[in-house]
Amino acid sequence: MASAATRSLSSLISHRRNPPSSSSSSSSSYHYCYAPTRRPITISVGSKTTRRPISIVAASSSSSPLAGAGADTDPNPTSAPAVSKNRRPADENIREEAARRRAEEEGLNGGGGGDCRHFSAWYAPFGSADGDGDAGGERYSLDEIVYRSRSGGLLDVRHDMCALARFPGSYWRELFDSRVGRTTWPYGSGVWSKKEWVLPGIDDEHIVSLFEGNSNLFWAERLGRDHLGGMPDLWVKHCGISHTGSFKDLGMTVLVSQVNRLRRAPLSRPIAGVGCASTGDTSAALSAYCAAAGIPAIVFLPADRISLAQLVQPISNGATVLSLDTDFDGCMRLIREVTAELPIYLANSLNSLRLEGQKTAAVEILQQFDWEVPDWVVVPGGNLGNIYAFYKGFEMCRALGLVDRLPRLVCAQAANANPLYRYYKSGWADFQPLTAAPTFASAIQIGDPVSVDRAVFALRATDGIVEEATEEELMDAMSLADRTGMFACPHTGVALAALFKLRDRRVIGVNDRTVVVSTAHGLKFTQSKIDYHASSIPDMACRFANPPVSAPKTVETGEDSIEEQINFFNLLPISD
Amino acid sequence: MASAATRSLSSLISHRRNPPSSSSSSSSSYHYCYAPTRRPITISVGSKTTRRPISIVAASSSSSPLAGAGADTDPNPTSAPAVSKNRRPADENIREEAARRRAEEEGLNGGGGGDCRHFSAWYAPFGSADGDGDAGGERYSLDEIVYRSRSGGLLDVRHDMCALARFPGSYWRELFDSRVGRTTWPYGSGVWSKKEWVLPGIDDEHIVSLFEGNSNLFWAERLGRDHLGGMPDLWVKHCGISHTGSFKDLGMTVLVSQVNRLRRAPLSRPIAGVGCASTGDTSAALSAYCAAAGIPAIVFLPADRISLAQLVQPISNGATVLSLDTDFDGCMRLIREVTAELPIYLANSLNSLRLEGQKTAAVEILQQFDWEVPDWVVVPGGNLGNIYAFYKGFEMCRALGLVDRLPRLVCAQAANANPLYRYYKSGWADFQPLTAAPTFASAIQIGDPVSVDRAVFALRATDGIVEEATEEELMDAMSLADRTGMFACPHTGVALAALFKLRDRRVIGVNDRTVVVSTAHGLKFTQSKIDYHASSIPDMACRFANPPVSAPKTVETGEDSIEEQINFFNLLPISD
Repeated sequence: MASAATRSLSSLISHRRNPPSSSSSSSSSYHYCYAPTRRPITISVGSKTTRRPISIVAASSSSSPLAGAGADTDPNPTSAPAVSKNRRPADENIREEAARRRAEEEGLNGGGGGDCRHFSAWYAPFGSADGDGDAGGERYSLDEIVYRSRSGGLLDVRHDMCALARFPGSYWRELFDSRVGRTTWPYGSGVWSKKEWVLPGIDDEHIVSLFEGNSNLFWAERLGRDHLGGMPDLWVKHCGISHTGSFKDLGMTVLVSQVNRLRRAPLSRPIAGVGCASTGDTSAALSAYCAAAGIPAIVFLPADRISLAQLVQPISNGATVLSLDTDFDGCMRLIREVTAELPIYLANSLNSLRLEGQKTAAVEILQQFDWEVPDWVVVPGGNLGNIYAFYKGFEMCRALGLVDRLPRLVCAQAANANPLYRYYKSGWADFQPLTAAPTFASAIQIGDPVSVDRAVFALRATDGIVEEATEEELMDAMSLADRTGMFACPHTGVALAALFKLRDRRVIGVNDRTVVVSTAHGLKFTQSKIDYHASSIPDMACRFANPPVSAPKTVETGEDSIEEQINFFNLLPISD
Repeated sequence: MASAATRSLSSLISHRRNPPSSSSSSSSSYHYCYAPTRRPITISVGSKTTRRPISIVAASSSSSPLAGAGADTDPNPTSAPAVSKNRRPADENIREEAARRRAEEEGLNGGGGGDCRHFSAWYAPFGSADGDGDAGGERYSLDEIVYRSRSGGLLDVRHDMCALARFPGSYWRELFDSRVGRTTWPYGSGVWSKKEWVLPGIDDEHIVSLFEGNSNLFWAERLGRDHLGGMPDLWVKHCGISHTGSFKDLGMTVLVSQVNRLRRAPLSRPIAGVGCASTGDTSAALSAYCAAAGIPAIVFLPADRISLAQLVQPISNGATVLSLDTDFDGCMRLIREVTAELPIYLANSLNSLRLEGQKTAAVEILQQFDWEVPDWVVVPGGNLGNIYAFYKGFEMCRALGLVDRLPRLVCAQAANANPLYRYYKSGWADFQPLTAAPTFASAIQIGDPVSVDRAVFALRATDGIVEEATEEELMDAMSLADRTGMFACPHTGVALAALFKLRDRRVIGVNDRTVVVSTAHGLKFTQSKIDYHASSIPDMACRFANPPVSAPKTVETGEDSIEEQINFFNLLPISD
């Protein structure tokens, strides 16, 4: 039965590099293909069928956000989007409501045209010529399952920028602002409130969202004032205060939504599940989104590296955690073979869909500053996809006229895993992969980053900088931030340590508006904090350790008079 | 020096029960008093000084949200609040901007009157006659430091409901909706976007906010569909996806803001710090908010109960963690003595300020349903303050015309700590405190809840129900929820188990719109999940345990052919 399944699968696999008739070698560059005919992509924004509109604006709630957009050739939108709260009828759930809205829009517009807009996106090789006119170039539908370009390089999701640019920047600003707090599925999500820029082709009812995004842009008042020379405009984007506790949610909602879409398409054998090889945030996010959608998730891991504690999220979310008696390289080899032959989608770090979700954090930062551009954005870097995602979000806002410039990006690496830092120091002359040493910032302990080319592109385009942080520097920076009200993870510590250094060298000015990207919740990394505050880390001074204070026995037993007890308490270091 | 300080403190203490001349006995009912003269409370909403308005509505952005409100006697507001994005000038931080706005409003209105509204709130004994006319009754300014009523009972924060009721429900709905996503300090917070209902008297620039609230109202699609008989309208309010990982943030922002206000007042000796006795979420939230504000926090704990792991949040946030060689009762005795004599504010569970913040979660739920009232709200209960807070939020919305009815409340207790459940089963005839047994839902392991009277009031007023859950029931419910994409804490497991039982008994109908309140992030309670999935909990079947799967050696080493390997993978339980 299994081999029959394998055979029927083989007929589905489209061998792009080799013609379909060639041998079934297990090369990992096969493109498992679906959707020979693509139906026109129709994006409809806002509802024409508001049942019980509760207008929160003075404008008419019946006007669609796109009503002012006019025809394709001359949109010239002048009126702002109306923000109408939309109550679905009691016999409908929010997915059914989304499906009904789409059906109504399509009926109204004959399946496209009218005042519905047509946006689209596709895969193209990273670094290839831009623009939607290169019909002759290599490109793939987002409905194809393809991880690398023909030459084995990275792919990039490209958007039809001409279609998007038919609307001025003010239109997009107002549209995105109008969706904050929207209860209409799926716009309550920080990612899907930018749906036209993320996955324009997906139907709303196929989206798998846990209301990711819209994360706190925290004003680091005390850290800036007390520890960075009176910096008044320092902010931390807390991407880790999220459903699974890390920024990976932003990308995973896009990847799993696309898989969900493909599973609903008329494939002869649908995608059976999604796989990854990760002990960390990726497997946690993948498992949660797959669990929410009812899609099987498989996590491949070397047996000797597995502890239940590391894996508590995927295990709890019902993923199949596969313990293999091999090392990480063996896992990766096996996962590539298996996903090339079996209909298991690969959620690895190559995947460019995830970056489409992650880039919305950049758009959100601009939105949270009322569309003013910060001077600096500091991002921790390991596999280096995220810094490119931030660049991409900022650059789309610039290209489409929402803002008029880019912030300067800083990529912060742990000194124990600093191949990009070394590359930067060589003037981008010589990239050398290395064997990363252990670091408390375990998620960025990567010596040969997949997305190095993406990162270099982002840094060159933004006059960017790469900085590094030793273990002591990153733990001290994390601990100092905690003292001012945060609960940072060690990766955020790397970014903060880079900020300290750049401030010391006066590269970042005291009045520069600066955003540090926090990538995970500190609750995921409590052991490193425990070790630090116990001063039990070898060769580290742990100078901000804050162990418990023991009161003298006489205080506790009440043998002292109340006045003597108070004398003790007055000695406590509780003054400012 | 210390005793001099103590003496000067003594002169500050206002002994309400005993006259100031009486002996300095260490009674815990002292009222440490401040603010003999209260300045008129001026609340100004919205800005008249928008520098770079980016209107996201078609309405004029220059009109204040209160512009349509008219005079005190006849407000009759008809126009909706304008949503204007407000850019502060570059030389101002967000606190300075808030102070300037207040100064400008006061200058404009001569310190009150005009079109500024006057709202107020005060402490009154819980259960005393309502209304703002009872001038003869016991009441205290919120600027007094008072924890209990004269008779030793609970206090309650009362609002001038007549002043609030001068505005119709539609006004408040629109005002609160208009503040979602606002970047003007402090309205980006889910708590402070309801400031007029929380702490109307505080100046914006004194607020200590970490952008709490606005938490995810998660549609539990799969849990309802697959495990609760096809329930289409089941939601989980994720209060634990927050800065410190629990709902305590909502209350602590109010308490610490009020302390921050008092510390800026002209006291001869200001409040030196804030103290609490807790190993859990309360100490974590207190420490984070105090750290953000630069206010010393002290956590009192029995020495033998302390592990750094439990205390990693307060330790990291720089709290003074005081290890006392006594038990919890000894700690409580000492903390009461110390806080009665020393200017250390007590952040205990009596504190009614915290409930003012927590109640905003109820307002948020209504807001997230576009002001439709759910049928049921299920809240885990230990000390029982939170269920009253939810009642209070819902009831204020009903009393002020935002909605027309109340949801039915369910209080869910662990069977190992179920004094309220027993009380309920007795028909509210006989309350018996008990010694709570250990439970995985450790934060609600309470046998003598402080707020039992508050809870009974809330349940009677909403035709409420109390349900209980055994350890196995709560762990199974938590694990089943995790399988559908959540990462619930054991307390949320208690609430979910109660829901399962009430669905089984058909008390909660399949189509009833039901909200389960999730109180903490599962990342705070990973050990219980690890034990469950390792099936290492004595006397528990752990029937949803999901341990890793080991692949046969031949698969891993590549000794099998790729087809044989695929056969193995096809056997994995990855189908729906």
